[in-house]
Amino acid sequence: MKLTGKQTWVFENNIYINSTGTAVGPKEALGPLGDKFDICHEDLHCGEDNWELAERRLMEESIDVCLRKANISKENIDLFLAGDLLNQNVTANYAARQNQIPLLCMFGACATSMETLAVGSALVDGGFANRILASTSSHNATAERQFRYPTEYGGQKPDTAQFTITGAGTALVSKEPSPVKITAATIGRVVDLGVTNPFDMGSAMAPAAADTILQHFKDMNCKEDDYDLIVTGDLSGIGSPILKELMKDEGYDLTTRHNDCGLMIYRADQDVFAGGSGCACSAVVTYGYLVNELIRGNLNKIFIVATGALLSPIMIQQKESIPTIAHGVVMERVQDGE
Amino acid sequence: MKLTGKQTWVFENNIYINSTGTAVGPKEALGPLGDKFDICHEDLHCGEDNWELAERRLMEESIDVCLRKANISKENIDLFLAGDLLNQNVTANYAARQNQIPLLCMFGACATSMETLAVGSALVDGGFANRILASTSSHNATAERQFRYPTEYGGQKPDTAQFTITGAGTALVSKEPSPVKITAATIGRVVDLGVTNPFDMGSAMAPAAADTILQHFKDMNCKEDDYDLIVTGDLSGIGSPILKELMKDEGYDLTTRHNDCGLMIYRADQDVFAGGSGCACSAVVTYGYLVNELIRGNLNKIFIVATGALLSPIMIQQKESIPTIAHGVVMERVQDGE
Repeated sequence: MKLTGKQTWVFENNIYINSTGTAVGPKEALGPLGDKFDICHEDLHCGEDNWELAERRLMEESIDVCLRKANISKENIDLFLAGDLLNQNVTANYAARQNQIPLLCMFGACATSMETLAVGSALVDGGFANRILASTSSHNATAERQFRYPTEYGGQKPDTAQFTITGAGTALVSKEPSPVKITAATIGRVVDLGVTNPFDMGSAMAPAAADTILQHFKDMNCKEDDYDLIVTGDLSGIGSPILKELMKDEGYDLTTRHNDCGLMIYRADQDVFAGGSGCACSAVVTYGYLVNELIRGNLNKIFIVATGALLSPIMIQQKESIPTIAHGVVMERVQDGE
Repeated sequence: MKLTGKQTWVFENNIYINSTGTAVGPKEALGPLGDKFDICHEDLHCGEDNWELAERRLMEESIDVCLRKANISKENIDLFLAGDLLNQNVTANYAARQNQIPLLCMFGACATSMETLAVGSALVDGGFANRILASTSSHNATAERQFRYPTEYGGQKPDTAQFTITGAGTALVSKEPSPVKITAATIGRVVDLGVTNPFDMGSAMAPAAADTILQHFKDMNCKEDDYDLIVTGDLSGIGSPILKELMKDEGYDLTTRHNDCGLMIYRADQDVFAGGSGCACSAVVTYGYLVNELIRGNLNKIFIVATGALLSPIMIQQKESIPTIAHGVVMERVQDGE
């Protein structure tokens, strides 16, 4: 059975991550994972004339490097599943114009990385594609202008705010054997506990992360000990302790099993308020770092839960609260002899 | 084989449309298909305080009526695949907050109707879901404000402009037998021939429609005569003749086989410039009218090609041209004895 429990897919075939590509901006390059990324830019413009073009370049670079590492041309990719934070997902659409791979564009805010990876894996498992690319991006300056204020305004922020990372991550998925398998995915529901403060996404998203993790445990009849690491996308310093509390209330102890991509990507002294966020946060940490930790044998089995705040400036102006969602994917190291 | 040719899925199982739901605004109610829709509103507010809430109500109503007609509760739906034209797909996200069905949110502009239906059908075919809902919406006033100007400005438009329809359509898909089958789907590539005029989407989208139809013919080794009708989403009065010309250049004659949802939904005297457009245009015409024509036996096999202009105001300001995409789904009447 592929649909296990209410919200979880267990793949029938072995589905592999064959290659990954990551490209980041200067601040991410200076963070603790800086040397894990394929391409690091020295300035936010990434050699382009405006922020949108810079973000597009990051996504295109992450695709190019992913394909180059796999030694596969884009003509041999069946589907491009992609999304970003910009209105009308312009980064994904224009990247698809460039690469000419049939496009399934998706929006899950910062949960898009695992939404595209989960659906792409399902389509490969079901025989609807031989090879897919899953790609997501975010850029600090495009996100600031669209969701908050142009950076030139120098608007002040509270410590609960998060810092949208600049980067893009791409994964190539197929049935061709490779050291890392994708074995399951859990598709999240929309959770909204009434947070209305766009400068506190961590508090808004933690319940969505808890909902998806709890449903995953239930569907798979498993628990925190079954994973070396349960990684959330961008709960950062505010949301992470809330998640642990929520899980503790349900009888699970994530203390030694949890980390958050938004906390991993920056050092504490990098002036990023509560930590990193953005569509690319979970993408570059997963594809640039965690996948390689699985390959090296430093990790054996992880559950990556990308968390998205479905924030809309128009809805905030209309006094709506912020709906959130989390999608999770299980990755495993292929064991010797397997 | 499920992936047939380069871009087409042929479903291995019988995948059915079990039920549909449609809700529309006043202008659509007065059009030639007015009596085909489940719910018709007498004013654009649809009983709500603002346009975004009105659009959300339309989507929620289309879901409710779809489930009611099928006598299935939302707890028995595994996935909600939805999207709309608004920034951050807020209609879909807030509808998913309401219905609590696990969400895969997608963005394909006006091609979203067939993107959600195609992916939903694939996930049912592959065993990843037993029942899915595919839902899309658009609202004339939310689209005008976001993509053009608030309606209160009374901005003038050229005759090449299209009129975003107000409505929402939902389909329930499963393997449970029903009179209409979904047998194949073709996922489109992004096509951009350089149109930069946001008041002429028909010219921009026609090449994307042609690209997807031609690829479908190639992948399936079929031609126009194999379909009773090839229906495009919203090429309307400007794009439809361009599509026919493009297809004629490739040796296919769509003269008697083609119609366009944007031309079907309004009468010529309804002051809609070149015709209807919007995410919901292909959704309400397909789910409200065409599916029932298949049930009644007036049609046997149709190919619905939803066309999307991936228009972004920011990209237009940056002098970019408009990328477009088209996704197609084949529906067939279940024959007697089948």
